[in-house]
Amino acid sequence: MAKGGVMVTGGAGFIGAHVCRKLLEELGHPVICLDNLSTGSVDNLADLLANPDFTFVEHDITHPIPEDVPKCLYILNLACPGSPVFLQRDKEKAILTSILGLRNVLRFAITSRSETVFQASTGAVYGDPEVTPQRESYPGRVNPVGPLACYEEGKRAAEALCLAYREQCGIRVKIGRLFNTYGPGMHLNAGTVVANFLTQALRGQPLTVYGDGRQIRTFCYIDDMVDGILRLAMDTPGEFTGPLNLGSDVEVSIRELAEIVLEVTAAKSEIRTLPASAGTARLRRPEIGLAKQQLGWEPTTGLQEGLEKTAAYFRTVLETSAET
Amino acid sequence: MAKGGVMVTGGAGFIGAHVCRKLLEELGHPVICLDNLSTGSVDNLADLLANPDFTFVEHDITHPIPEDVPKCLYILNLACPGSPVFLQRDKEKAILTSILGLRNVLRFAITSRSETVFQASTGAVYGDPEVTPQRESYPGRVNPVGPLACYEEGKRAAEALCLAYREQCGIRVKIGRLFNTYGPGMHLNAGTVVANFLTQALRGQPLTVYGDGRQIRTFCYIDDMVDGILRLAMDTPGEFTGPLNLGSDVEVSIRELAEIVLEVTAAKSEIRTLPASAGTARLRRPEIGLAKQQLGWEPTTGLQEGLEKTAAYFRTVLETSAET
Repeated sequence: MAKGGVMVTGGAGFIGAHVCRKLLEELGHPVICLDNLSTGSVDNLADLLANPDFTFVEHDITHPIPEDVPKCLYILNLACPGSPVFLQRDKEKAILTSILGLRNVLRFAITSRSETVFQASTGAVYGDPEVTPQRESYPGRVNPVGPLACYEEGKRAAEALCLAYREQCGIRVKIGRLFNTYGPGMHLNAGTVVANFLTQALRGQPLTVYGDGRQIRTFCYIDDMVDGILRLAMDTPGEFTGPLNLGSDVEVSIRELAEIVLEVTAAKSEIRTLPASAGTARLRRPEIGLAKQQLGWEPTTGLQEGLEKTAAYFRTVLETSAET
Repeated sequence: MAKGGVMVTGGAGFIGAHVCRKLLEELGHPVICLDNLSTGSVDNLADLLANPDFTFVEHDITHPIPEDVPKCLYILNLACPGSPVFLQRDKEKAILTSILGLRNVLRFAITSRSETVFQASTGAVYGDPEVTPQRESYPGRVNPVGPLACYEEGKRAAEALCLAYREQCGIRVKIGRLFNTYGPGMHLNAGTVVANFLTQALRGQPLTVYGDGRQIRTFCYIDDMVDGILRLAMDTPGEFTGPLNLGSDVEVSIRELAEIVLEVTAAKSEIRTLPASAGTARLRRPEIGLAKQQLGWEPTTGLQEGLEKTAAYFRTVLETSAET
């Protein structure tokens, strides 16, 4: 018997494309990928386009999902740029994609009788936390008029909307709060520290560290994240909604990260210290006990291994772009 | 020279109708009132409908504001039900009115070259605070998946959207966080404690107090609130955006409120104690130092005086409804 179809919104993005690939190639589900290609790219899906079980639809979910899009058993809503560089470009779009986009996804789910909607929320809902690690019950510390509020508050309001639909329309929703994720396919120019360091190292430029480099971060490798997302979306009991943290709980300082990047790239770059910039002090580290308990899941890819694979990807992209 | 026109969305609601009246009759501005009449009523505006400077348009701001609506110098966005009873009825609507409604108001403001948009935010953005009083800089304690999250998070995200428009489109926005308000014209059946007590007292029924009655609240009389809103919207420097708390900082216990209600209504009702209900423990009291400084404003109507005027209104409504 054929497995149920899965719709992935934002499926041409970094995480979305990996989700599509795993669903198709490992789990055997037909996949419909929706993306407006604002920050995603069909290049991320190049190897999937010939698969007869894969359908790509260019569509912006802030507009209603067309009725002729085939119904799916699951809908994974991964549509919304997550990196500060993209968010700053169009703050209104971030908030509208979070709310209006989700509303359109939920309405489509109801009319097409989907079983489950997975909502990609974010560790950013905790804002600038004063407690570490952050449990799912921690209400967060977000400034509604702060510089990233359109993303942080938009994603918080999206969680609220998920619960309203569950309550008022009876639809199953699963909320995953995704933390910092890296790996092959990630954007080179999204301003994330992993992308910056890898690009600098592979170009033989100094690695720029802001402040003393002791700031702590956590980094989850993409394969682990995709595994967590799909377990939450497809393998949890119907009544389990979350929110559930998904991310790495292994702390790494920015300076340690820089040193591992130099090691895996065999770069001779120096590490250059620059003055700390405002708003870089945040420490977000997820408490993932609930994910372990509910999903039997935790990240298994070490930072060295993950960065080696990511560096290989960056090398290919940088070489290709140098040739053209 | 004629004064600039003012659009009031939610103008048929409790606060909105008072705002319309003051703008027209005291300040001499032409007023365009938009309301979808979901919780507001044209009865609130009965005395204004014959005024040639007053225009009522039945419109739901989750749809774009029609282009033929005349342009206005100021837009006061007061559209969104605020009381738990109305919010619980349609949570999706609360969040969409907050975000999509505001987006439509802001877009109309830009195309019609309005000077200023006032956004009615709420003390509910502080959620269930662990500090009292709440300053504007306090990030609040809101559970994104809690029972009132569609309102609390919707209003937080709305503030974020205001700031995005100010930054990206250059429009002046003024954000007022409105706290508990009462007075003539308020809903009798919205589940607020003032309305419940007055209705019970005037019907000779027992006043129902949940828990020990020591819960602290603050209550701002409508005339004071309207004065604060209009000062913030129209009399502050262009670069002042807020958010700014507007409300009473005078603490009153629920039991004291019950006793004052019995006094001003001369009712013989007993005060009946019922078990505390979940979620009634919140203490929201605004720190209003910033409002005093920026607006030269603070509430001046005492609770006894305000309740006398409100009781007179309730008496009229209850008598009228008894006759029909």
